[in-house]
Amino acid sequence: MTDKESSRRAVLKAAAAGGVGAGLGAMGMASPAAAAPRRRRVAILLYDGLTALDAVGPYEVLCRVPDIEVITVARRAGPVRTDTGVLGLVADRSLRQVRQADVLLVPGAGNRGVTAAMADTETVDWVRRLHKGTTWTTSVCTGALILGAAGLLRGVPATTYWASRSYLETTFGAVLTPGRFVESGKIITAGGVSAGIDMALHLAAKLADERAAQALQLAVEYDPQPPFDTGSPEKAGPELQQLALKLLEDAAR
Amino acid sequence: MTDKESSRRAVLKAAAAGGVGAGLGAMGMASPAAAAPRRRRVAILLYDGLTALDAVGPYEVLCRVPDIEVITVARRAGPVRTDTGVLGLVADRSLRQVRQADVLLVPGAGNRGVTAAMADTETVDWVRRLHKGTTWTTSVCTGALILGAAGLLRGVPATTYWASRSYLETTFGAVLTPGRFVESGKIITAGGVSAGIDMALHLAAKLADERAAQALQLAVEYDPQPPFDTGSPEKAGPELQQLALKLLEDAAR
Repeated sequence: MTDKESSRRAVLKAAAAGGVGAGLGAMGMASPAAAAPRRRRVAILLYDGLTALDAVGPYEVLCRVPDIEVITVARRAGPVRTDTGVLGLVADRSLRQVRQADVLLVPGAGNRGVTAAMADTETVDWVRRLHKGTTWTTSVCTGALILGAAGLLRGVPATTYWASRSYLETTFGAVLTPGRFVESGKIITAGGVSAGIDMALHLAAKLADERAAQALQLAVEYDPQPPFDTGSPEKAGPELQQLALKLLEDAAR
Repeated sequence: MTDKESSRRAVLKAAAAGGVGAGLGAMGMASPAAAAPRRRRVAILLYDGLTALDAVGPYEVLCRVPDIEVITVARRAGPVRTDTGVLGLVADRSLRQVRQADVLLVPGAGNRGVTAAMADTETVDWVRRLHKGTTWTTSVCTGALILGAAGLLRGVPATTYWASRSYLETTFGAVLTPGRFVESGKIITAGGVSAGIDMALHLAAKLADERAAQALQLAVEYDPQPPFDTGSPEKAGPELQQLALKLLEDAAR
């Protein structure tokens, strides 16, 4: 191997690692995976009209938690389109193929997608059935409404997308609770879209430990520095709220 | 329409909107799209082994910028698998079908994916060719290395994934510059993975205006509250750096 090839193979390197290579393997440290009896399963529900980041944010953290396997599930295995119609995600398994998961994650969608999912008996029944065997049942954004439609949130402290908070409360009897994500028993509901990343780090600490979760925060270089400070409805105010909903509507398929 | 149906259709509602409905359309305000002569195009490069959030974070913001269309492009149209192998994204077009874009976005990947992409003449030539006609050429994470392989970063202030900083500098002659994202002429390079969301909000302000970008920050409820503060290598320290690289390596396909 030439020096150039060797250098190409070490595209990722810790600043402190010097010449020892990219992984702890090279330092003789055992993989945490070696000690684990079985891999726990995170099932991410995909459905037509979902909001991609709701699913992909948590996926990007959870797929690297030691001893965890992440799978994607939809009514039928194959591609589903997102709320804007311009991105496709692939579900590897159908609902019927998946009867158990340690963690269930239900992402949200825009009006069309979430309304259809809430009305789809097969999907809602599957969520209710899987929930019985989960260690954690989680949602991001309007995914909480699907948990609600499955009857899982009556009297339960929860949150959802900012613009769907009152809907969640009045329609499904959830106890609206402030927070980037809300944990209540084994149910964790996150706020809108990007809140799933924060929830996933919290969940990673529970599935593994705090150090692993902290390392995963670095793995996705999650040191947020948004150029504005308008990420909550309270900070944004009513005019930006209306504009946000209009932009969502305009881009909806 | 029954009251229940009506309520289901208003799953998303601004707190301040009361009964007027979810969109500005109902308030008689014109869509910004109506005034635009043509939709500008954002092309997101997908390739085998990419890191999903690198692409999906910016997509989720940019797909709702007024008068913008987002398209996905890969060597061949169809599904590509991510770095972990457990998620598929669908590219709607092949490189040959796309000869122009106003914005080019190149996401990153792990060692395997980025090494293969840098070595793939077809991909690198396509990036170089598209760059000639772009208004903005952008990368997330190790996507900067692909811009580097295309010869676009020699002497250019830039950033990349934390663990690839020195590689970017020594291999491609970029001028490593601190920042969540770095703008230099028409090239904007973002740091690792989640940094693409911050960059996309910055870009949204340039493609539309600050108010639209601020509304889009609310649209994705990007009010980050990570449970830890270990999202940069400096904050995390050398031990978490090593652990992060190990977890990345263990989960890599």
